[in-house]
Amino acid sequence: MAALSTVVGAQPAIKIVALCGSLRQNSYNRGLIRAAAEIAEESIKGLEIEYVDISPLPMLNTDLEIDGTFPPAVEAFRRKILEADSILFASPEYNYSVTAPLKNALDWGSRPPNVWGDKAAAVVSASGGSSGVRSQYHLRQIGVFLDLHFINKPEFFLNAFQPPPKFDANGDLIDAQIRDKLKALLLSLQAFASRLRPTRIN
Amino acid sequence: MAALSTVVGAQPAIKIVALCGSLRQNSYNRGLIRAAAEIAEESIKGLEIEYVDISPLPMLNTDLEIDGTFPPAVEAFRRKILEADSILFASPEYNYSVTAPLKNALDWGSRPPNVWGDKAAAVVSASGGSSGVRSQYHLRQIGVFLDLHFINKPEFFLNAFQPPPKFDANGDLIDAQIRDKLKALLLSLQAFASRLRPTRIN
Amino acid sequence: MAALSTVVGAQPAIKIVALCGSLRQNSYNRGLIRAAAEIAEESIKGLEIEYVDISPLPMLNTDLEIDGTFPPAVEAFRRKILEADSILFASPEYNYSVTAPLKNALDWGSRPPNVWGDKAAAVVSASGGSSGVRSQYHLRQIGVFLDLHFINKPEFFLNAFQPPPKFDANGDLIDAQIRDKLKALLLSLQAFASRLRPTRIN
Amino acid sequence: MAALSTVVGAQPAIKIVALCGSLRQNSYNRGLIRAAAEIAEESIKGLEIEYVDISPLPMLNTDLEIDGTFPPAVEAFRRKILEADSILFASPEYNYSVTAPLKNALDWGSRPPNVWGDKAAAVVSASGGSSGVRSQYHLRQIGVFLDLHFINKPEFFLNAFQPPPKFDANGDLIDAQIRDKLKALLLSLQAFASRLRPTRIN
Repeated sequence: MAALSTVVGAQPAIKIVALCGSLRQNSYNRGLIRAAAEIAEESIKGLEIEYVDISPLPMLNTDLEIDGTFPPAVEAFRRKILEADSILFASPEYNYSVTAPLKNALDWGSRPPNVWGDKAAAVVSASGGSSGVRSQYHLRQIGVFLDLHFINKPEFFLNAFQPPPKFDANGDLIDAQIRDKLKALLLSLQAFASRLRPTRIN
Repeated sequence: MAALSTVVGAQPAIKIVALCGSLRQNSYNRGLIRAAAEIAEESIKGLEIEYVDISPLPMLNTDLEIDGTFPPAVEAFRRKILEADSILFASPEYNYSVTAPLKNALDWGSRPPNVWGDKAAAVVSASGGSSGVRSQYHLRQIGVFLDLHFINKPEFFLNAFQPPPKFDANGDLIDAQIRDKLKALLLSLQAFASRLRPTRIN
Repeated sequence: MAALSTVVGAQPAIKIVALCGSLRQNSYNRGLIRAAAEIAEESIKGLEIEYVDISPLPMLNTDLEIDGTFPPAVEAFRRKILEADSILFASPEYNYSVTAPLKNALDWGSRPPNVWGDKAAAVVSASGGSSGVRSQYHLRQIGVFLDLHFINKPEFFLNAFQPPPKFDANGDLIDAQIRDKLKALLLSLQAFASRLRPTRIN
Repeated sequence: MAALSTVVGAQPAIKIVALCGSLRQNSYNRGLIRAAAEIAEESIKGLEIEYVDISPLPMLNTDLEIDGTFPPAVEAFRRKILEADSILFASPEYNYSVTAPLKNALDWGSRPPNVWGDKAAAVVSASGGSSGVRSQYHLRQIGVFLDLHFINKPEFFLNAFQPPPKFDANGDLIDAQIRDKLKALLLSLQAFASRLRPTRIN
């Protein structure tokens, strides 16, 4: 069941969809996703990160599902998730839990047939106070039902408001050490996704 | 915050605002709120329940706060919460957590100044499967930051899909035993809210 | 906010039992309890803190309950809890949850008849890493079944290993600012316990 | 950590260590482990289940670690865990969380060097009330730090006290349908453990 390949390294790239729990224009969590995409492009072979915007999704109401079809924005979103190997959540903590827009995206994706199933996942948080420490375990509990396989290590929590500044005025990550931590998380996610991907010969 | 009364014992009624986590037209959780309001009116002295609809709230984005003011629907919602003594949540479980619309309402109310602070609260759930057992503790954790005081007993979980039917075609609660359990919860919430309301002499 | 009586100050003192989740000799959490007891004695009227050692409790096994009686160490422990108005937990985080000795004490106290019921409670944590942020919500969830009423604010998390040193070689708290935070928590617990204690006139 | 085999496909068996959170003689959770071991032996190829008793472990106190060595019962326990591919927890719910003896075993295993790391895991619960639904997510959160990879599906919750009887007087599982559910969980754990085991060629 583990992956075999006749030519080592000929594995197709791991495709990650990255979702941001905050809708704010200058969200630091959105900045973490931009940094992750840059890191993958510049320095990680075999990893592709695509940011998917969740702001067009209507608030979930199953009355909006008509004859088994979803609103167009929901259909488009679900297709993106379905095509991914793996999910990267940039999930700020609001009131000790995940944000409403992120929960909304998770719930739309879970409508039958569930599009999240059996994918590897990781979560990063930029927040104030305790840096999101309370919220990530809510996301992991949700992931049990969605059948997401979260990596355990490294965990990534960033106190975005502690000096020195971690982001510039555009919300772009400027701290080299945190960039390294983010890269370590991406490598771990890539490795875990690779272990879980069905065996491929040729 | 509490009103005074000139005669001991003539305590003003405990005012409960009831919120429903589902936006569906025929939501069973909305049915639980209708039943709770009827029970209070028919058989509990000193308890008023007002249903407040959360569906008009826009998805939270702090970019929508301009010069310290909230969108009108948010202002109206926040005023309702502020005037309540106590909150009754009818909270279905979606993917092992609270719904996005409910989280959204919680988050809007928490924007400074937090309107939830120091209120008594209770939660009821009508759901399939494990009846919401996994989600209510997420709501309680959120309540720590919001400074809500949830009652501990009785807890209320209703498997809405287990025969015999608990609701009629309009989504109205028709099960007498569950009505009794709901009444017991309301009495417990009223008692807890009364203990927390500052002592009044004259 | 506290209850009125015809003679101000004639309220009996709030009696707190303090429990430590760590059995280590020089536990910092044990140090927090010593500091709390000193603070109460020196500067808080109407608050008594008694430390109760949980290390004599055997590992819970209901086979040890014979003819409705508990082992002597368990009986003594349960009596202490029963007589308290309120509980202060000093709860280090082990592997993202509460410690086994603390869970064991909680479980023994819950055996029918539950001795924890309807008491006010608060929790403080001295830990490394995220300072116990992940574990306190497990304790709060346990408290729902035990019927403990935890205060919401302030929360108390202490990173015990961050310089400068917070404790001396004996494990005694030496940081004045943290002492002030601990006092604020004790005052909040006292006030909440007072609100919950039935109003007494005469 | 993984063994080699000379012929592709001749994978060595997945070795599961099974732990029971209850110390009671006639524990239903212990009964689930006996049933799981029988099922594996009778009808699942390539799966070995060994029950490891956690009752000899002393209550965790790091003062008991002397010169980097653990008490003998702890050493023996840690060795068993280290040699396993995978862990099966039979975890009753006590007061909405895991039991103290189980937390104690988890904590001893986590002392450096952590013996749980990178193993697949699954959890089954026989309990009253909500069948353990509240406690398993605490175990999963603990597992994040321990680096356990829990399967998501199927989840296994058994209300042990709902008629008809599920266990006989010896605490042995006698319900065929539940036996089938238990087998489905074991197959899922075996498959997940196999996916995670490093690729073996030769």
